[in-house]
Amino acid sequence: MRKKTWALPLLQSHPDIVVEHPEQLCGQWKELLGVNEISVEIGCGKGDYWISMAKKHPERGWIAIEKDYNVAAVALRKMLEHPLRNMRLIVGDAKGFDQWFSEGEIDVIHLNFSDPWPKKGHSKRRLSHGEFLTSYHRALAADGEIRMKTDNSQLFEFTCVSMAQHPWKLMEMSVDFRRDEHPEDAITEYEQRFMDLNMPIYRGVWRKINE
Amino acid sequence: MRKKTWALPLLQSHPDIVVEHPEQLCGQWKELLGVNEISVEIGCGKGDYWISMAKKHPERGWIAIEKDYNVAAVALRKMLEHPLRNMRLIVGDAKGFDQWFSEGEIDVIHLNFSDPWPKKGHSKRRLSHGEFLTSYHRALAADGEIRMKTDNSQLFEFTCVSMAQHPWKLMEMSVDFRRDEHPEDAITEYEQRFMDLNMPIYRGVWRKINE
Repeated sequence: MRKKTWALPLLQSHPDIVVEHPEQLCGQWKELLGVNEISVEIGCGKGDYWISMAKKHPERGWIAIEKDYNVAAVALRKMLEHPLRNMRLIVGDAKGFDQWFSEGEIDVIHLNFSDPWPKKGHSKRRLSHGEFLTSYHRALAADGEIRMKTDNSQLFEFTCVSMAQHPWKLMEMSVDFRRDEHPEDAITEYEQRFMDLNMPIYRGVWRKINE
Repeated sequence: MRKKTWALPLLQSHPDIVVEHPEQLCGQWKELLGVNEISVEIGCGKGDYWISMAKKHPERGWIAIEKDYNVAAVALRKMLEHPLRNMRLIVGDAKGFDQWFSEGEIDVIHLNFSDPWPKKGHSKRRLSHGEFLTSYHRALAADGEIRMKTDNSQLFEFTCVSMAQHPWKLMEMSVDFRRDEHPEDAITEYEQRFMDLNMPIYRGVWRKINE
């Protein structure tokens, strides 16, 4: 995405939604949002999923993370058309995750159409790589879940095997998620494009195993 | 498949290959075949995989199980064109499994294009249902594996989740196994048909977890 001159000013003018110092809210997200459960989407892109899900499930807190501020600004602009109190946006790299959330603070982590980083040498950058899984495990509640959707078969395969090497239990799995109706789950813009091309959407849900 | 008048006579005239009382060989398969490792294919159909794999890996024993004797006879007839000493055929229902093999006797179990039994009420008949998994777990060696291939997405999904509920660890997974070359693994006639139609072959490998 090209640089947008309006991106940074827009983000900076909405400190109520764009959390500048997420580490200062560590352990306090539920209180801040007035909710009992927290969902986090890592890599929210243009924000379609974040916005739709926050509307579908207003009783939960919805925190979106996006490292590209030009993209995050697009998500924010869309969100501002119908702002909801249960939403927050973090502009930053998921590597900061451990500082932003306390142990067991999150209930569900969503990974939607993450960058597959297809080269073997880049596998550590995949959001389902072992190092990230360790962070997620710590931040998730005892019955916390990771829910992943992707169009990329190789990322999906990598993720399934990666999860199996760590303390996670596969709860749901689909190699063609949109074969059935799923009104509880929003379709992202990106996802719709693949559905229009008749391509399968892969999805897995893993629950944390407490050791 | 239609009844074949020649099927039973053919099977009965080859007691060297068609094992009439497998329970009598329980615990003695390796010795009988003069091998160190045993592979079992449950539901060998017309025998393409069984025959190709026994040729590809002659150092292993290859035992095929098929419950339909008309189908088993076709497999036997094909096998007799180039018989190998490391092959045996059991005509019977996989429910007898526990009687046929002793604890830890098998190294790899293959499930290829098994009947998906799509109706929910029939799920117990699927060869990856929990009850079968318990039998396989017992009969497999400490590092024993189940290797499954299927064209049926719903059977594959069911199997992945079913395995995760039991002491098995996913080692390999592919939602499009023939995207890459796999000279080590034979392509069944059935599999080739799906490949010709450009349909994906799903495959998973699970290793037994010793508790």
